[in-house]
Amino acid sequence: MIKLSVLFPYDQGKSFDMRYYYDKHIPLIKQLIGFRCLTMAVEQGIAGIAPGTTAAYVMMNHFYFRTLNDFHSSFAPHASVIMNDIINFTDTRPVIQISEVKI
Amino acid sequence: MIKLSVLFPYDQGKSFDMRYYYDKHIPLIKQLIGFRCLTMAVEQGIAGIAPGTTAAYVMMNHFYFRTLNDFHSSFAPHASVIMNDIINFTDTRPVIQISEVKI
Repeated sequence: MIKLSVLFPYDQGKSFDMRYYYDKHIPLIKQLIGFRCLTMAVEQGIAGIAPGTTAAYVMMNHFYFRTLNDFHSSFAPHASVIMNDIINFTDTRPVIQISEVKI
Repeated sequence: MIKLSVLFPYDQGKSFDMRYYYDKHIPLIKQLIGFRCLTMAVEQGIAGIAPGTTAAYVMMNHFYFRTLNDFHSSFAPHASVIMNDIINFTDTRPVIQISEVKI
């Protein structure tokens, strides 16, 4: 199984509009990404592991696909619309990576 | 639900012993972390989103707990053993964060 992770770094000088993210961005993705996306997950950072530290990522968004081909055919046609919507809720640049689910 | 993420950054100058990680580190965690960990997940980085780029994280390891209390009582007693085992397979420093699972 293939996982696409979109990790939004926490930065004190940057903004992240949670309302827009949950009310507009996530529904937009759900509408576009289609049936080849097996499931998605959203996690909001609480803290780092050392006491008093902030989470490295304010938000983590994950999408699961059966194969790399499923990911490409599902995501690629809508990538520009999804990526262009990011500036509507944050001025951070997400770390995005593709992984293979091993366990 | 609470998620602990342990993200090992990819760095060309650093090493990561996959065999030790899968054969020794993961079993060690499974043995120690106990029943309050609902489930765990392991993902191996394949690529970044831009063509030809490497994944930001060579390995991502996640642990799910019902509550923050469950996480603390499950992880804290074994944290030093688990963290001290990391030098046996990599010289990278993991990014570790606690998140709340929202979707």
